[in-house]
Parts: sequence; structure tokens; C-alpha cells
Amino acid sequence: MPIAKTIRAGIVGAAGYTGGELIRLLLRHPAVEIAFAQSRSSAGIPVSAVHTDLYGETELLFTEEVLPEVDIIFLCAGHGEAVKFLSATTLPDTVRIIDLSHDFRLEATALQGKRRFVYGLPELNRELIRQAGNVANPGCFATAIQLGLLPLAAEGLLDEVHTTGITGSTGAGQGLSPTSHFSWRADNIQAYKTLQHQHVAEIHQSLRSLSPGPKPEVHFVPWRGDFTRGIFVTSVVDCRLSYEDALSLYQRFYATAAFTHVSAEPIDLKRVVNTNKCLISLEKSGSKLAIHSAIDNLLKGASGQAVQNMNLMFELPEHTGLQLKASAF
Amino acid sequence: MPIAKTIRAGIVGAAGYTGGELIRLLLRHPAVEIAFAQSRSSAGIPVSAVHTDLYGETELLFTEEVLPEVDIIFLCAGHGEAVKFLSATTLPDTVRIIDLSHDFRLEATALQGKRRFVYGLPELNRELIRQAGNVANPGCFATAIQLGLLPLAAEGLLDEVHTTGITGSTGAGQGLSPTSHFSWRADNIQAYKTLQHQHVAEIHQSLRSLSPGPKPEVHFVPWRGDFTRGIFVTSVVDCRLSYEDALSLYQRFYATAAFTHVSAEPIDLKRVVNTNKCLISLEKSGSKLAIHSAIDNLLKGASGQAVQNMNLMFELPEHTGLQLKASAF
Amino acid sequence: MPIAKTIRAGIVGAAGYTGGELIRLLLRHPAVEIAFAQSRSSAGIPVSAVHTDLYGETELLFTEEVLPEVDIIFLCAGHGEAVKFLSATTLPDTVRIIDLSHDFRLEATALQGKRRFVYGLPELNRELIRQAGNVANPGCFATAIQLGLLPLAAEGLLDEVHTTGITGSTGAGQGLSPTSHFSWRADNIQAYKTLQHQHVAEIHQSLRSLSPGPKPEVHFVPWRGDFTRGIFVTSVVDCRLSYEDALSLYQRFYATAAFTHVSAEPIDLKRVVNTNKCLISLEKSGSKLAIHSAIDNLLKGASGQAVQNMNLMFELPEHTGLQLKASAF
Amino acid sequence: MPIAKTIRAGIVGAAGYTGGELIRLLLRHPAVEIAFAQSRSSAGIPVSAVHTDLYGETELLFTEEVLPEVDIIFLCAGHGEAVKFLSATTLPDTVRIIDLSHDFRLEATALQGKRRFVYGLPELNRELIRQAGNVANPGCFATAIQLGLLPLAAEGLLDEVHTTGITGSTGAGQGLSPTSHFSWRADNIQAYKTLQHQHVAEIHQSLRSLSPGPKPEVHFVPWRGDFTRGIFVTSVVDCRLSYEDALSLYQRFYATAAFTHVSAEPIDLKRVVNTNKCLISLEKSGSKLAIHSAIDNLLKGASGQAVQNMNLMFELPEHTGLQLKASAF
Repeated sequence: MPIAKTIRAGIVGAAGYTGGELIRLLLRHPAVEIAFAQSRSSAGIPVSAVHTDLYGETELLFTEEVLPEVDIIFLCAGHGEAVKFLSATTLPDTVRIIDLSHDFRLEATALQGKRRFVYGLPELNRELIRQAGNVANPGCFATAIQLGLLPLAAEGLLDEVHTTGITGSTGAGQGLSPTSHFSWRADNIQAYKTLQHQHVAEIHQSLRSLSPGPKPEVHFVPWRGDFTRGIFVTSVVDCRLSYEDALSLYQRFYATAAFTHVSAEPIDLKRVVNTNKCLISLEKSGSKLAIHSAIDNLLKGASGQAVQNMNLMFELPEHTGLQLKASAF
Repeated sequence: MPIAKTIRAGIVGAAGYTGGELIRLLLRHPAVEIAFAQSRSSAGIPVSAVHTDLYGETELLFTEEVLPEVDIIFLCAGHGEAVKFLSATTLPDTVRIIDLSHDFRLEATALQGKRRFVYGLPELNRELIRQAGNVANPGCFATAIQLGLLPLAAEGLLDEVHTTGITGSTGAGQGLSPTSHFSWRADNIQAYKTLQHQHVAEIHQSLRSLSPGPKPEVHFVPWRGDFTRGIFVTSVVDCRLSYEDALSLYQRFYATAAFTHVSAEPIDLKRVVNTNKCLISLEKSGSKLAIHSAIDNLLKGASGQAVQNMNLMFELPEHTGLQLKASAF
Repeated sequence: MPIAKTIRAGIVGAAGYTGGELIRLLLRHPAVEIAFAQSRSSAGIPVSAVHTDLYGETELLFTEEVLPEVDIIFLCAGHGEAVKFLSATTLPDTVRIIDLSHDFRLEATALQGKRRFVYGLPELNRELIRQAGNVANPGCFATAIQLGLLPLAAEGLLDEVHTTGITGSTGAGQGLSPTSHFSWRADNIQAYKTLQHQHVAEIHQSLRSLSPGPKPEVHFVPWRGDFTRGIFVTSVVDCRLSYEDALSLYQRFYATAAFTHVSAEPIDLKRVVNTNKCLISLEKSGSKLAIHSAIDNLLKGASGQAVQNMNLMFELPEHTGLQLKASAF
Repeated sequence: MPIAKTIRAGIVGAAGYTGGELIRLLLRHPAVEIAFAQSRSSAGIPVSAVHTDLYGETELLFTEEVLPEVDIIFLCAGHGEAVKFLSATTLPDTVRIIDLSHDFRLEATALQGKRRFVYGLPELNRELIRQAGNVANPGCFATAIQLGLLPLAAEGLLDEVHTTGITGSTGAGQGLSPTSHFSWRADNIQAYKTLQHQHVAEIHQSLRSLSPGPKPEVHFVPWRGDFTRGIFVTSVVDCRLSYEDALSLYQRFYATAAFTHVSAEPIDLKRVVNTNKCLISLEKSGSKLAIHSAIDNLLKGASGQAVQNMNLMFELPEHTGLQLKASAF
């Protein structure tokens, strides 16, 4: 007997990558009914005409309008658009919001009218999310980097961090540009926003809120990778813990995490692609500790984590609708 | 309330690609409990040490032995190994078998001791599979090609067929060889087994059994592709039907199919990757009809279709455990 | 002692893919000096700002204007633009033209004002090209398919042909479109212009001009591939020759060809990528002969063949400037 | 008039990746004749049967034996094999050696019998190489990382360095292993030898020999990338120079370098693939300087640099035989 479809969910900006991934997840979520999938650019046409893998699975059409008779709205409208949407739209207070943009992630912007946004990283804020009316979903790189550093920050062991991360093309959205052209990106690597990526602010906010000791400082070099899905990150820090003690610290910290696992074996990116998991492994050499972490940027890095947050907000088991088969290859 | 785990399933040859994909599916299947995952080469070690994407999801170990107290056994042991296994192993008659090799696909080899194998293509043999004790799961190329041709064969409209197909690297298994080396296969294309692929025999058997008219003859050129998952096939035939009539014929033929959909729009491979779906589209030019079909070789082309067959054999809804999120990108 | 730079060459439409490839070749060509690289969109900026691999190799700037004091002009302006250019531009009769578009490939369009264009496939028309003032460079698919079929056509052994070909993304130019987006094209396959590709006309023209027997008819299915460079084609025909006789026929036909080689071993695409070569292999099964051919679409399929034609027109050894190192991997 | 083929060169271990790339280069080198291409595993068979892109270009066979009547021998036999070869083989003193393994790169191992090896990084040791009888060719990662750091080291501005690098699959050679399998490596990323890569020793040796100030310390995280050719590296250091001063320092340092160029624009990997170039760019943020560098691991990182060293040793222009067309896409 299936769970009753008790949660009516709407999606704003449903024609983009994160909107599409949310639809894929929610169509299979046992407790959710999609009330609307709004898209200005695609209003009136079938969802499966844009997200073509859904052909044969749904008759849903994109709508022009947002319906207020819902329990939750996911905002996938892009950076800056969430603020505009909330200003322009009157919603009942009972409608919860999960925003996937960076509009409400920082303390300074977390209060929007009467709505206060909780930073939606379950490994950091699980209890706050459970009670939240509004959640600011973390950035994709921010998720992978923080999950690699939270245990050290919580012990006050984090100071200067050197991080390099590589991201798949879906992290840049579906806009057409020279660097999204297949002929350019295939077999290519490029750095971008070196030491200036916008996610560093939310990373610093989390690490510094947690750290009883020094104020962690992350120097982050992002690279564009020649694959479509996934983020792989390595952070290097000075650390006085032995490998065994560090491993033990990480395993304790994530013992109850629903999707974040610490491995004593080497990890690689494809183990998490098309899942909501984060995998972490550690290596020690001299005084340096290297932390590797891997996620799927569209799932744990965006829409999957949004569903995880929704599950927490509606008192569902955290895994509900998120036990995804890895693509593995 | 979850479905009771009423089906106890075993897997023989569980350390290979199709075995791993079966484990991924069955771990999430609401009606199945994995009783054993047998592997000679990996006996005693954790399943997640070989199928590393399963880290954090199962504590299952590979076994040396096969346990007879099961409802069904999937044979993923490779071509020639299934015959040997059944000869060497005494199993209760009540244990059903789904074999993924080519050992029992042809009429001439379908009877093995007291066990008679039904050819497990649901779109062709759904009722026979429902009543079967033993199923020979079709080949991956054979599935994609047949699904593109069955409607024409059933109308006696199929004569000479020219087919080209391209397959991902997982179709060749995990054996190491020069043509499985990344440096060779990346960005490369090669024909192999030209006009001599072993799947043509089972294709001919199905088409000819169905066709009231001429004896269809398929000339098949397989290519190795530079991707990991998926098969894309185009068949060209002479056809007197108009495009509209052909489309209508195909849509009627697959109106009740659980996973095979006929699209009036162009298709592409990635819409089906990481799903159990087959997508088909048609194009007409002059007297020629081109039929495009796409599947995931490890799912609809192997382990997914095996689960679909199991669902039919155990009177479960055909979609059970197979509503997979496409990777899409 | 280097060859004197005796040929002054200009390029119209030099900012596109084929224009860039021509610049790469001509910069290293011992007998050529690039007189101008014209581009309306990029006039005034350095060539190396667009073709960024040339950073450190040339100070050349794109020009707005075409300079008439040259020996040869390559037209890389795109289909339809070559006709317009020749109508709008007064050039001395002594300036030779090689056009890379399809504007002058067919007999019906080969005469443009006082200029008559020779179809520039050296394996078909070497002597005519040597004496030509104007050459229409063949299409990329047209080159690969014809080279696979010319020997049979010349013997009157060609009737109905079923051909499938796959092309890299550079074949579609640098325009941005949904199917040129990396997230779409990576690991994907799609058919396009099925049985209706524009290159079939020039293929038929060549084959029929050569064939003393039946009028060959090519049914061609093109696929988009998930790589950047290269074309791989398989054609299947009825053929009464044995494998040995067919191989011998092909080897005789191409005995003096500068870049087209017939291999008795299986071929694969990457052997020719980043070279001007065409590799061909044959397989026989029953009455069917399969012919595989592979080229680099930007070289033998476009700019490399254009340089080969220029070499012939200026009585240089055919290999001059075209002895390129394969990327091989 | 071509340059006379005055240099007779032999290759030991010619069937591997670096051996093959050397053959590709030397076949087109105007001053070199390949005297032998030795391979124990492939003795007696055609070079083009192993390096299949060379089909149609050479009739050369692999030899079992090494011929002493040569001017230079390239050792491509693998780490540890070069020492064994020199111990077991009596060569005239006049035969020069370029070794591509790590056997003679460090001061402690640079003297082998009567042969003293010069570390063959032309940007560091051009004059020493010109006079050398024996050259130890640098490692691929070592080349990319050093070229990014030499200018700072020479000014005594280098202290602690955090470096991440990604390499194509050809860097790991042609051996078959789980991580060289296409199904594993496609679309995947993995760290390996984290903070323990063997190239760090030669990097430290060069930087410290050059640095008048602090003893530079490089913390290096290597990643396996999902492409075949190329290395992209980012190093982050504390640096008191402004961006403009740093750029100026780098441009002065490499003003006379034959293949290393400093770009004021962002760089990407494919600009150098299939060339002997190294491209470098800089970015400054706060007190941190990021240095990006890119090379082709088989060319500037191995066989191309070996030919560059040979050119220096034989007083040829450094570019001779190395003006390669980039694959660009």
C-alpha cells in the first residue's frame, strides 16, 4: 500500500536543469504530488517536451502561473530571481519554501519579509531544518567542500584550507555559451573564478559558526570538467591528528548522516553520480591531511538535497524518494 | 506500508556488470530479498568492495555457494556457464531461473533437462513469461533491434533489413583488453562482428515466428561506441505504409507495453540511459522506412529486463522496482 | 633550405572551424604565405584570440576586407555565402578559388560567371584538379562515403547501398544550439537528416558518372556522435566478388592515392584523427560486402583536402604541408 | 631542399606510448633517420601493427636488437629499465642518450658509469643540455609544475606551494588495469598518490637549486582525468607581487623559451594538446597567486621534450620537427 500523496508541491522555474531533476525525483516520490511546474519560457507545453527522458512517464504541462494551494514551493528560478518572486507573489504563510538559488543562504539575507530561511545542509542543521518554514538550499560546490571540512571545524582543527574542485557541465546550467559547446568542453579542463567563487562565502559562514578555534579560511580553485554530472573536491590542511584519529573523527561525525559516508578506501566520482550520496575519504602525509569528497551536483548538490530537506520539514524518513540507483559507469 | 519481501532471490555470477546491476535493482525492489550473491572470484568479500557505488547501502558479502532455498535464481555467469551450472547443480523444481546468457535463447537449446526456457522479451511473449518457470533473457542488441521491428513483422511487412547499432563499453563486460582500454576507446568508433553478430539468430527466430509473410533477413553492423551505457540502433526497410500509418501501427502494437514507447519526435540515446525504457521513432523517405530504437544495454538490454520478467513471473506489476530516474545528462 | 613562400593565400570566413583549421595548416605549409584571414565578425582582432591554440604562433589579425593580390582564395564562408561572395566581389581571373561550401559541387551549379568549378576529390578527379582554376571541395560525409564506394562504382558493381555514418561535433560548426551543448551531446547518439542528407546528391553524381553499369542509389543514415573530430562510415552492398578480389580491387584503385589507404586489418576512427588520411577496410559475409571508411572531418573532410587540392593546382607534391602527426589517442 | 638526414636515432622500448609518440615525431623530423625501433615484445612485426595510426606511413619493423651505429638512443623502456639497459649494453662513448624514465633525474643517480646525465628541462638547463652527452628527460607532471614555478623560484619568492594537477590516461601507459578500463575511467575523477607523487623529488631539486631564498615545498595532489592527452595544473602560493608584476616576471623569464608562453588571458587544456607547447596564466586574489599551466603529457611531458633536447644537443633550431598542429577540439 503506497503512502498517501499528502504533500502538494509546486516548482517555479521548472524548465531548467535543477527544475527538471526535481520533477524526476518528485514524480517517483511516494508522498508527493506535483501541483504545478511553472515556467515562463515553456508555459503550456508538455514537461516531457523539455525534459525528454520523461516521455511516457507524465502528461504534466508547464504552467504560466503559480498555484497557491500547495504545501511547498521549490524555487529553481536562478540567482536573484527568488528575491523578486517572493516580493511579487503573495503566498499563504503556510506554504513552505525551499529556494535553490543563493539569494537567502547568508545570514545577512536570510530574512525576507516575514520569512526566515534556514541554511539547508542537513549534516549541519538537521534539527533547524525539521522546524523550518523556509530553507535556503546550499550551493553544489559549497556542499561538497563543507561536507569535507565540517568534522575538523567542529573540533576547532581548521585554519587555512587549500581546495581544488572540478564540476560537470550541468553545474553551469543549460545556457548556451562558448564554454558549454561540446567541441570546446570535450576532453578539456579550465579554471574559472579562481580564488573568487561565490560559494566561499557560505562555506566560511558554516565553518566559522561551527569552529571554536581559529577562523577557517578556504582558498578555492574551481575547474570545469569534461563530464556532465558530479563534483570531486580535494582539500589539503595542516592537521595534527593521525590518519586513524582523523578517520575516526569523520566516521563519528557522520555516523547518523543519511547520505554522507566516510570510506577507508579510495573513492572516485562515479560512485555517487545519479545518487544523493556524498562519499569522503582521507589521506595523511607528514603534517598534511587531504580530504576528498564527491557528490552529484544536481542531486546532493541541488535537487536531491532539496528533497532531503523537504523530507525533514515534513517529518518523512530522510531517504524517502531518494534511494536512487547509481549509474555506476 | 511496504510490500512484504516475499521473493527470495539468488544471483550466480554476481561480481560482473550484469550481476552488479541486478544487485542495484533488487536492493531497492520492494518485494525482493537477496538471499545470496554468488561469485567464485570474489567469494567472502563485501559486495560493495566490487560494486563500489553500493558503499553505505549494503553489508552483503559474496558467497562461494549457491543456496537452494530461494524462489528464483538469476544466472549472470556468462555464455556457456549457464549450461554447466544447471548440469552441475541440483535445484528444487520450484526454483525459477532467469538466465542472462545466450545458452537457452534459441528453440534448439531451450530445453535443458526438465527445464524449458521461454524467450523473455515481454513485448513478444508476455503471457508465456507469466506462466514460465524458466526464462532466457534476450541479448542487448537483440532487444533493441527486435523492438524496432516486431510491429512490422507481425503484419508480414518485413523482408530485408539493414541495421546499424552502436553499443556502450559495458556491453563488452569488465574484462581487460586493448579495446576496453580508455586510451583506445575514448573518442573512437570501430565496427566488430560485422554481419556476423551472434544476436542475429535470436532476432531471426522471433521475427520469423511472428511474420505471416516473407522470412525477414537482418543484415546487422555493430559498432563500438565511446560511451559506457546504452545502445542506439537504426534499421532501414522497404515499407509501403505511409509515415502516419506506420506510426499508428507502432503505437497500437506498444499501447500496453510497460517500458516501450513510440515517439513522434526525434529520440536520442540519453533519454533512456539508466532506465528500463525503450524509445522508438520512425522516419519515412521515398519507399524506405527508418526505425530508430534506444535502450540501456545493462537495463532493458539485460538486468532490468530480467527484473521485468521476474515481475511477470511472480504476478507483480511490471514496473515494480523499475521506475528509475534517468541520468538524463 | 626552406621552399620559397611562393603562394599567397587568402581565407574568407576565417573565424569558423574550417577557416581555423586552414590557418593551422597554412601557417606550417612551406610554400604558402597567408595574405589575409578575413572575418566580418572578428575583423581587427588577433587570429589567436579566436583560434586560441595558435597563441604564441602568429601575430596575424583578422581583416574586414579581401585583398585581391593573392594567388588563391579559400572560401570558408558557409553554404550560400560563396555564391554571394563571388557575385559581390571582383577578382582578377588569375586568382584561383577553392570553395568549401556546397555551392558549386553539383554540375548544375558548377559554372559561376566565368568560373567553372571542378569537384575536388583527388581520388576521382586528380588530373582535372591539376588544371583547374576553381575547385569545389567535397562535403565531409561525401568524402568518406565516396572513398568507400568509388572502386566498386568504377567496375559497375554498385547498385543499392545502405550506409550509416557517425560524425564528430565539429562537423556541425561552432554555432550554439541545444544539440551542440556539452550536457546534451556527451555520451549521446542521435540520428538526423535520416535518408535526406544533402551530401547524397554529390555522392550520386560522382558514383553515377563513374559507373558503367547500374545507377547506384545510396540510402544514408547520419548519426551525431559524442566526439569532436572524425567520421566513421559503414556501407553494405550486394557484391559477387570474393573478399580477396574485392580487397585487390580496392588496393589497385588506391595504389597511387596520396592519403587513402586500404587495410587488410580492422580499422578504427582514431587512426586518422588529426591527419589527412582516409582508411578503408572490407568484410564479406554471404553475398554482402561491408566497406568501412574513416576520415577526420575537418582535414580530409574539409580543410586538409582543400590544401591537398591547392597542392595539386600549384604542382606541389600532394603531401606538402599535410604530413600531420595523428593524435592517436 | 630538405635538410640532410644526418642524425641516426634508435629507440629502445619503442612499442609503448612514449616510444610510439617518438616514432611519430622522428618520422617527420627533417634531420633524423630512425635506425632502429627496438621492442622485446613486438620484435619482428611492423611498427604500424602496434602504432596503427602509422599505417601507410612507414615500413619499419620492430627489432630485437639495439644497433650501436647510431648518433643517439632514446630510452623509453620504463622506470628501472634504463639502469639495467646501460649496465648490460656496451655502447660507444659517442652515442648520446636521452632517457625518458626517472632513473637519472636526481643528482644522486645522475652519474651512471662514465655517463653523466643532465636534467633535460630546456627552460632551466638549456646551455647544459646543449653540451650534454646524456639527458634525463623530466617527468610529465614535473614539467608542468616546474614551468609554473620556475620564475618565482628564481626570484626567491617561492615558499609553500599547494598544487593540484589532472592527467590524461596516456600518462599511465598502455598497461591494462581496472583504472584504465574505459567503463571505469569515462566521466570519472580520482585522486591517486596524494601528496606522495614520485615527481615531487625532481621538482624540489630544480626549485631549490634555483632559489636564493627559502626552500620551496610543494604539496601535490594528482588526479586521474577522463581524457587521453594532457595535463592541467594549478599551483597556489603566497606572493607579494602584484598581478602585473608577476605577469611581467613570467613573461621576461620565458621571453626566449621556444615552447612556453605566458598568456594574459585564461588558458584551457586543449590549446596545447597534440603540441609541444606549455601555456601559463596567472591570477591574483588577496595575497595569493594562482598559476595555471598546461601541457600535452606525451609531448612537452615526454617525447616532444625529448626531441627538443635532441635538437639542442645537435645544434638544430629548437622547433625543428616540433611545429605540430594542435588538435584544438
